[in-house]
Amino acid sequence: MSELSLPLGFQTTGVACGVRGDTGRLDLALFVSDRPATTAGVFTTNLVCGAPVKVSRERVPRATGRAIVINAGNANACTGERGIVDARRMTEVVAKSLNCAADDVLVCSTGVIGRFLPMDKLAAGVPRAVASLATSPAAFALAAQAIMTTDTVPKQVTRSADLRGSKGSATVRISGACKGAAMIAPNMATMLCAIMTDAELTPADADTALRASVNQSFNCISVEGHTSTSDSVILLANGAAGTGPLDTESQKRFQTLLNEVCSELATLIIRDAEGATHFITIDVIGSRSREEAFRIAKAIADAPLVKTAIHGADPNWGRIISAAGYCGVPLREEDMSLTINGLGVYRDGAPLPFDPKQASDLIRYQRDTDIVLTLKHGDARVRYWTSDLTAEYVRLNSDYTT
Amino acid sequence: MSELSLPLGFQTTGVACGVRGDTGRLDLALFVSDRPATTAGVFTTNLVCGAPVKVSRERVPRATGRAIVINAGNANACTGERGIVDARRMTEVVAKSLNCAADDVLVCSTGVIGRFLPMDKLAAGVPRAVASLATSPAAFALAAQAIMTTDTVPKQVTRSADLRGSKGSATVRISGACKGAAMIAPNMATMLCAIMTDAELTPADADTALRASVNQSFNCISVEGHTSTSDSVILLANGAAGTGPLDTESQKRFQTLLNEVCSELATLIIRDAEGATHFITIDVIGSRSREEAFRIAKAIADAPLVKTAIHGADPNWGRIISAAGYCGVPLREEDMSLTINGLGVYRDGAPLPFDPKQASDLIRYQRDTDIVLTLKHGDARVRYWTSDLTAEYVRLNSDYTT
Repeated sequence: MSELSLPLGFQTTGVACGVRGDTGRLDLALFVSDRPATTAGVFTTNLVCGAPVKVSRERVPRATGRAIVINAGNANACTGERGIVDARRMTEVVAKSLNCAADDVLVCSTGVIGRFLPMDKLAAGVPRAVASLATSPAAFALAAQAIMTTDTVPKQVTRSADLRGSKGSATVRISGACKGAAMIAPNMATMLCAIMTDAELTPADADTALRASVNQSFNCISVEGHTSTSDSVILLANGAAGTGPLDTESQKRFQTLLNEVCSELATLIIRDAEGATHFITIDVIGSRSREEAFRIAKAIADAPLVKTAIHGADPNWGRIISAAGYCGVPLREEDMSLTINGLGVYRDGAPLPFDPKQASDLIRYQRDTDIVLTLKHGDARVRYWTSDLTAEYVRLNSDYTT
Repeated sequence: MSELSLPLGFQTTGVACGVRGDTGRLDLALFVSDRPATTAGVFTTNLVCGAPVKVSRERVPRATGRAIVINAGNANACTGERGIVDARRMTEVVAKSLNCAADDVLVCSTGVIGRFLPMDKLAAGVPRAVASLATSPAAFALAAQAIMTTDTVPKQVTRSADLRGSKGSATVRISGACKGAAMIAPNMATMLCAIMTDAELTPADADTALRASVNQSFNCISVEGHTSTSDSVILLANGAAGTGPLDTESQKRFQTLLNEVCSELATLIIRDAEGATHFITIDVIGSRSREEAFRIAKAIADAPLVKTAIHGADPNWGRIISAAGYCGVPLREEDMSLTINGLGVYRDGAPLPFDPKQASDLIRYQRDTDIVLTLKHGDARVRYWTSDLTAEYVRLNSDYTT
């Protein structure tokens, strides 16, 4: 079997059902397990959240999940009670076609907010989608495409490893698809991710594993710091690989595999960030705790003055150091050293002499920018990803007719 | 005496001493009291702070202040021990010319960071500046001009009121000058403000009054959320109006007057924000506490997606509501109602029907945008000011040669 094969026991699809009007664009995706799958989910922490988040959140973790249904073109957010009814109805329609319980179906929506879902179109589209379910990589590509909003490329990742469980060894696969490019035009796009695996996991283990992976991947990216109302990452684990419960060593390897899938999907979002010309990786190391390192990295990543400096190929260490200074973590200038693309620019609280043109060229002529801030506080570290802030981002987020 | 007269007993000036090179631009300002003045200061909370902040912070509040010296063109920040020595030296040079103690002189610097001050030029410039001190509005205008960096206009405000103290009634004046347009090119500009009054205040009262005013003015503005390393607001109160200590009623009126001066200066900064096309006022009302209202208002003000929406004349209530949702204050959608420029767009958790073109035109055709978010939590409120995010802001902060 090729690396690209989906996890065993899963089928996917993407169809156009008209949520996006008559554009013919794919707007309805299904991710279906042919048997009960352990299901875990991680959702937005925004207190204002979409109806699908409210509905799906109550259904995980569970042992009997069967499907994730996702529509693009309408986020079903800020739609009050009717939104909740509509989100539940979507899962009922899917459940009827799959002959399972509605509670075993998870739902996500992405697109404009404040508008009611066209339920007639969705109800008509679901049976057609179910009829087109397939195990092929092509069907997975359709699903990844159907959840896109302002994304310029579909985002999907598959990884596999030979893992050992109580019933023996087998190739275990993890396939994930996600979307997101900012929280954006015309109203709000959101980060959504569906992950399938044929590993066998308990609901508690699936929940723990997913949270650990999300914590070092999707929670470590930012385009502009705006936490959307619909962010969702959902994992289905159906055990179809046949290993049975994994042994301790294989559990660790599964976690590593899941981390890789989530990190790659998360960085795909940043690489597709709206209007961006640079993909920025921020490593904060030598911190007292991961929490402090995270706080510093996020402050640097969200600072418009850092993002514009990188856009301008400016090795502006002052903006980076000062962002660390205002983020609330106790630190002194003397505790900090900084490299940009490997070039030392600041050490132990004082600027280092460097050739400004060389430093600028190191940023200008490559898409990837690596910022490493080293503290003298401890052994904790974090890696965080962000994009630069460009005039094109501003244009994309202001230039449209309401 | 005209409204424009400076507080009694004060002289100011602005000269070109060469910190900005041979451009001839004014770069050295003095604000001097002819007698010991009560002095209070409020400084940046950034843990990475400029040398002048470290030096001035230790000298307030005090009863015997005489002068504030400010240079533009070089922030004397991130300059280590030598920066501290240079900042102290600046105050010594001024003190020598004024024949007072160095500790009675406060110092601020603004401009590029990471470079040492040209002390020879400053030492030569100070005696020349002292020789040109004057009480005239023209001299005050020179001082306001000498502290500018990327500001496009000088920022100064004078207010007066008849107040009563133990020695009788008199006209009391407050004059303030400030600078700031962002934390910006070529490396970092900063918010600086010098305020003079001929009211008589104790150090403790001056400190309390200044903190109260700053709290509802300079602490309620944001261009891009980047707390600079040099923000400073310094008040000199020399009692020259002759009222003696103010009675309770006049103390309140003085506080109101100081609030007005600080608020007007703070909004002048936002009106001059880099690349901005809109001046945005955010009122959060009906909150449990001022702290919660402040947190919500700041989240809305700092959200790039709100700032770009206003730039695009988009009445995008979703971005505003969702920013409130992620700021950490406990709230439900049903608790919130929103107007944009007086037009109701969201009430009690649900969108209101409105004409999108009318709503957009209300934003497009005026510079001022008023956002009012009403909660159902209590009686606290806050007013916050910010600017929109434009391609020009991005250009100004990325387009320069390092």
